[in-house]
Amino acid sequence: MANTFGQLFRVTTWGESHGGGVGVVVDGCPPRLELSAADIQPELDRRRPGQSRIVSQRAEADRVEILSGVFEGKTLGTPICLWVRNTDARPEAYEEMKTKFRPSHADYTYFAKFGIRAWPGGGRSSARETIGRVAAGAIARKILRERYGVEILAYVKQVHRIVADVNPETVRLSDVESNIVRCPDAATAGKMIALIERMRRAGDSVGGVIEAVARGVPPGWGEPVFDRLEADLAKAMLSLPATKGFEIGSGFGGVLLTGTQHNDPFRIRRGRVRTTTNRSGGVQGGISNGETIYFRVAFKPTATVMVEQQTVTEDFKNTTLKARGRHDPCVLPRAVPIVEAMTALVLVDHALRHKAQCEW
Amino acid sequence: MANTFGQLFRVTTWGESHGGGVGVVVDGCPPRLELSAADIQPELDRRRPGQSRIVSQRAEADRVEILSGVFEGKTLGTPICLWVRNTDARPEAYEEMKTKFRPSHADYTYFAKFGIRAWPGGGRSSARETIGRVAAGAIARKILRERYGVEILAYVKQVHRIVADVNPETVRLSDVESNIVRCPDAATAGKMIALIERMRRAGDSVGGVIEAVARGVPPGWGEPVFDRLEADLAKAMLSLPATKGFEIGSGFGGVLLTGTQHNDPFRIRRGRVRTTTNRSGGVQGGISNGETIYFRVAFKPTATVMVEQQTVTEDFKNTTLKARGRHDPCVLPRAVPIVEAMTALVLVDHALRHKAQCEW
Amino acid sequence: MANTFGQLFRVTTWGESHGGGVGVVVDGCPPRLELSAADIQPELDRRRPGQSRIVSQRAEADRVEILSGVFEGKTLGTPICLWVRNTDARPEAYEEMKTKFRPSHADYTYFAKFGIRAWPGGGRSSARETIGRVAAGAIARKILRERYGVEILAYVKQVHRIVADVNPETVRLSDVESNIVRCPDAATAGKMIALIERMRRAGDSVGGVIEAVARGVPPGWGEPVFDRLEADLAKAMLSLPATKGFEIGSGFGGVLLTGTQHNDPFRIRRGRVRTTTNRSGGVQGGISNGETIYFRVAFKPTATVMVEQQTVTEDFKNTTLKARGRHDPCVLPRAVPIVEAMTALVLVDHALRHKAQCEW
Amino acid sequence: MANTFGQLFRVTTWGESHGGGVGVVVDGCPPRLELSAADIQPELDRRRPGQSRIVSQRAEADRVEILSGVFEGKTLGTPICLWVRNTDARPEAYEEMKTKFRPSHADYTYFAKFGIRAWPGGGRSSARETIGRVAAGAIARKILRERYGVEILAYVKQVHRIVADVNPETVRLSDVESNIVRCPDAATAGKMIALIERMRRAGDSVGGVIEAVARGVPPGWGEPVFDRLEADLAKAMLSLPATKGFEIGSGFGGVLLTGTQHNDPFRIRRGRVRTTTNRSGGVQGGISNGETIYFRVAFKPTATVMVEQQTVTEDFKNTTLKARGRHDPCVLPRAVPIVEAMTALVLVDHALRHKAQCEW
Repeated sequence: MANTFGQLFRVTTWGESHGGGVGVVVDGCPPRLELSAADIQPELDRRRPGQSRIVSQRAEADRVEILSGVFEGKTLGTPICLWVRNTDARPEAYEEMKTKFRPSHADYTYFAKFGIRAWPGGGRSSARETIGRVAAGAIARKILRERYGVEILAYVKQVHRIVADVNPETVRLSDVESNIVRCPDAATAGKMIALIERMRRAGDSVGGVIEAVARGVPPGWGEPVFDRLEADLAKAMLSLPATKGFEIGSGFGGVLLTGTQHNDPFRIRRGRVRTTTNRSGGVQGGISNGETIYFRVAFKPTATVMVEQQTVTEDFKNTTLKARGRHDPCVLPRAVPIVEAMTALVLVDHALRHKAQCEW
Repeated sequence: MANTFGQLFRVTTWGESHGGGVGVVVDGCPPRLELSAADIQPELDRRRPGQSRIVSQRAEADRVEILSGVFEGKTLGTPICLWVRNTDARPEAYEEMKTKFRPSHADYTYFAKFGIRAWPGGGRSSARETIGRVAAGAIARKILRERYGVEILAYVKQVHRIVADVNPETVRLSDVESNIVRCPDAATAGKMIALIERMRRAGDSVGGVIEAVARGVPPGWGEPVFDRLEADLAKAMLSLPATKGFEIGSGFGGVLLTGTQHNDPFRIRRGRVRTTTNRSGGVQGGISNGETIYFRVAFKPTATVMVEQQTVTEDFKNTTLKARGRHDPCVLPRAVPIVEAMTALVLVDHALRHKAQCEW
Repeated sequence: MANTFGQLFRVTTWGESHGGGVGVVVDGCPPRLELSAADIQPELDRRRPGQSRIVSQRAEADRVEILSGVFEGKTLGTPICLWVRNTDARPEAYEEMKTKFRPSHADYTYFAKFGIRAWPGGGRSSARETIGRVAAGAIARKILRERYGVEILAYVKQVHRIVADVNPETVRLSDVESNIVRCPDAATAGKMIALIERMRRAGDSVGGVIEAVARGVPPGWGEPVFDRLEADLAKAMLSLPATKGFEIGSGFGGVLLTGTQHNDPFRIRRGRVRTTTNRSGGVQGGISNGETIYFRVAFKPTATVMVEQQTVTEDFKNTTLKARGRHDPCVLPRAVPIVEAMTALVLVDHALRHKAQCEW
Repeated sequence: MANTFGQLFRVTTWGESHGGGVGVVVDGCPPRLELSAADIQPELDRRRPGQSRIVSQRAEADRVEILSGVFEGKTLGTPICLWVRNTDARPEAYEEMKTKFRPSHADYTYFAKFGIRAWPGGGRSSARETIGRVAAGAIARKILRERYGVEILAYVKQVHRIVADVNPETVRLSDVESNIVRCPDAATAGKMIALIERMRRAGDSVGGVIEAVARGVPPGWGEPVFDRLEADLAKAMLSLPATKGFEIGSGFGGVLLTGTQHNDPFRIRRGRVRTTTNRSGGVQGGISNGETIYFRVAFKPTATVMVEQQTVTEDFKNTTLKARGRHDPCVLPRAVPIVEAMTALVLVDHALRHKAQCEW
């Protein structure tokens, strides 16, 4: 089910970069939830190109339309189809890609797999596909917030070698949104922005790390064995374009500790089981333990760069290619709401699964 | 489907640490594959406790029995049920855990989720559950090797601060199996073994990093969007006990490069599309590009340590706990065949999915 | 997955009777299939209201738009989103249904389930939902015809007490389409039409039986145990509005034979295994045997009748209700392409599943 | 997922007629349910061969063993693996079937599909596979009974031309179990038994109709569109060996009524919405309406008959075959608990699905 995510809150995205548009069908959303475009549009605006000087300048308003599943302002419990039209499609900018594979893009692998590819804008492999995820994620977040008091937040933790200092327990959305790079550490944010602007001018790009937190998740979400919460989060994050790594809690750094250093001691606090440290990242044995869930996602530098590169043609000849037009020197600011959306989709699905099996 | 993995080659594990045993049902295996216990047992032997002085000394022979799906030495195309009895179960060693939650284990979260837990040996959260994965993975590996010429290999890349030097393109199984820590860099292996023995004596534990490679995967396996090859691999790895991180290709280190440094140029070599570098890790846009797939998995230090730790009881009182009996100072040597098995399960599933949709 | 059908050729429908429209996402369609609206529209025209004097007169052109998954006239292997706008929605005709439940409709059960309902036109329970199925089925039929030479055909076998005489082995599409009731037995068709017209004038309705055949299915499609071909066909048919029964081959009549009378003897004919009778209906043990597959589906009389009926209100008071406006005295003529579409969806899914597991 | 049934209460059966045994893995069962073999064995005893003079005399005790998922008498919420060993396997009785296909059995189609078959006893296509279903169904029934007050009952309604008179609203288990044919109409039961005994002596067989009822299902179970309750019931029933038809409520007979005759009027009774008739069979628009659910399943006469029949060999030559040994002149008495089990599996799955999505 390549294009569907989730077991009970099921999200199916569809659409290519150029063509009728991109969209999503959400199946399994609870009924009677108040929902309108106003719940969804702000998240799409955070993801939208052209929102600041450091992101791609493709001019898409990305207006969401609700085609089904909502009646008189409330969800019906039937599939919600959301649609965003493509308006600023410029296939002519991709004319050269018609016969050449862009390095470290999906042009070649899609062609190898399907024997056909929608060359304008990368077709289905375009980051425009994530519009459907963000739209669906906005619904998931609303459910998590209203029914469970769960708060999800992501932010730029690192750009290239510049690392921010952020406390996952206390960081607020307003801190994240206070600057265009979405790094809540204001001093560091400035350096990040300067670097990204330098990259833009050089026609080059940089990657980095996004950290995400989920606060207020009750103990018990997640599943033993294959559908561990961290496994589903890892899949969700690695399903995003340009991601190369995922780590939760202590992550790769945790291997530098011994067991006695790494274990999180339990203590009773205000009648609840708590841990005094949180190297587990809020998940133990695949199931939430009530502490803050936090994890990090590595994004490689964007593959579209404005310099000449070696590549090959569809008929297997060596050649070179130089991208032209709009270029995203760093995807991280726009990826923040996407990471949040995927986190919400994972959590709401596990909330429903927990309810189905365990809440008797 | 918490206990099922895969879409077309579907693996369902069952069983607890103590009780009737652990097993797996494999549904979707192609018919007419020659299969006997001799194909599976060697992999279980690599995973088995007691295989060397640096792993847990629980005395389990872990003999696999084939209960269904094979007739006169060949697969029938019907579900293959594999079973390993528990023989060295010692519930008395866990008596104290009956009322206390072991720190950084799944005792508390299982109890929080289900309101009940099989306290002997961690029940379902025990690493014994991976027996079913390794058994199923042995079948998957056989299919991949015989029908596709795909070779899968994993090895210990790092233990605590000790990092091995290994070339993923050339490392061989015999190198991996040449020592008890399963690190193909012999000099480093010795240091790792010494550290693990020191940890055993101290009642402490260490984690590390396993690197895995898949060679010979043809271009075109994997899916756009949610079921990207790296997403399914990430999920597979984070579904293993004690894992905290996953990175493919350049991984977290890739964020230190710029786009022009990071992109893998395409060149035609011997009539095939190849890349001259492989920072992508063999996957682009979620689909294999024909290069070697390689990735790394972070394992935290084992939670079972032989020192007194702070914890709480099932009735919410503070207490302390000191584990007794057998202890695994480093899970990595035994985790190597498990990582390979999960890699095989992901790849064979995508091989079948590719066949179903794209091979016309 | 209430709104998704199929495992490998997955169809997700969305949309309500009144609102943005109805549509479908097809995931898993093979790439490089030539596809345009011209392949789909003719089937929608056969399903369309207003096509003849004996069906509902709702004036919907039901024009299909392809929003994704097709590029330069060919499928991409990515999700195909098809959309049909609602144009002749007349919510005012349903004003009375806002507070009253129509007898033997889904008004009450949707309300009982979801606590909310889209009262105009029955919302999601409207037969308009089947537009997505017919559109997706048109793609499935094209694959079956072009890649496998499989021909699917359905026709009206019975209306009320009037039963047609049709040979499933030889009946042709042109026979079916030769009259507005879609009964290939011309003499009987006339009587059926007369009865339906009488029902229209009386404000009453009639049901009947549709028979469907699939010719040219090779031996081996279908699965043991739960996903038997007849089980999936039964589910497909009982998932259609107004259906009350399904029987394959000898069906309910087969219980009047003894085993020696009922068994289909095998004989070799032209080098192939054939049966000399076909009481099995082309399926044995859940798997096709190469003979013609045929089955029958019972449709109850349409629930919308133009006479006063006893019912209750949303606030649990007894009342009466008399439908007004457009009424479909017999759904069978329009249901013929829907039955064909669902048959095609079942078969194409099993074709892909067979390919994935068994074609080595 | 050929061998898995259900979305949330997932049942995977495995095993062949001859070999290690047959079993089932139940995934998704709620935790803390009291469960022991004593809950399951009685249902297996009702399905067991050799239980009376009118069924197959294969001597199987069919003792169930619980291999996992239960701890100290309660379910853990983890997969429950149930196993029944094969003891009275007599492959020698099938020696002739090694090269010949039994008419109207699955021998040929399994061979056509898989290119291999377990000829002893029909392998996976044997009715022994239903042991796993009955065992899992016993758990489902217990949940339905204890948590929801739902009662499920099936009985033999018709054998060949002999039809019983039974009131689905009032029939009790003790009536069903009062005779060996499981027909609650005692007078008719005698005639059925006499006929079946005549068939046994003649080496012939008869089929018939089983009717099933589910009482106490609350309004709201089931789903719109594809997973309608009647669609899932139809699939469940047609997935059973020897079934040829399914009808719910008025069924095929309903086509003889007009809409005004067929509609079920709503009335308020004791503060609840009720229908004064129940031609819908307890389901409207795919969702339960609170009335008794009832449906009928057609079983063809058993294919194993003790007379010489025309057939072909595996190497495509015409021949004849005469079955020897044990023969089941009528499967209906043993099929009653199987129909009940499948009904329970469908209902418990929808109970959990309803809970997950709609119970806020």
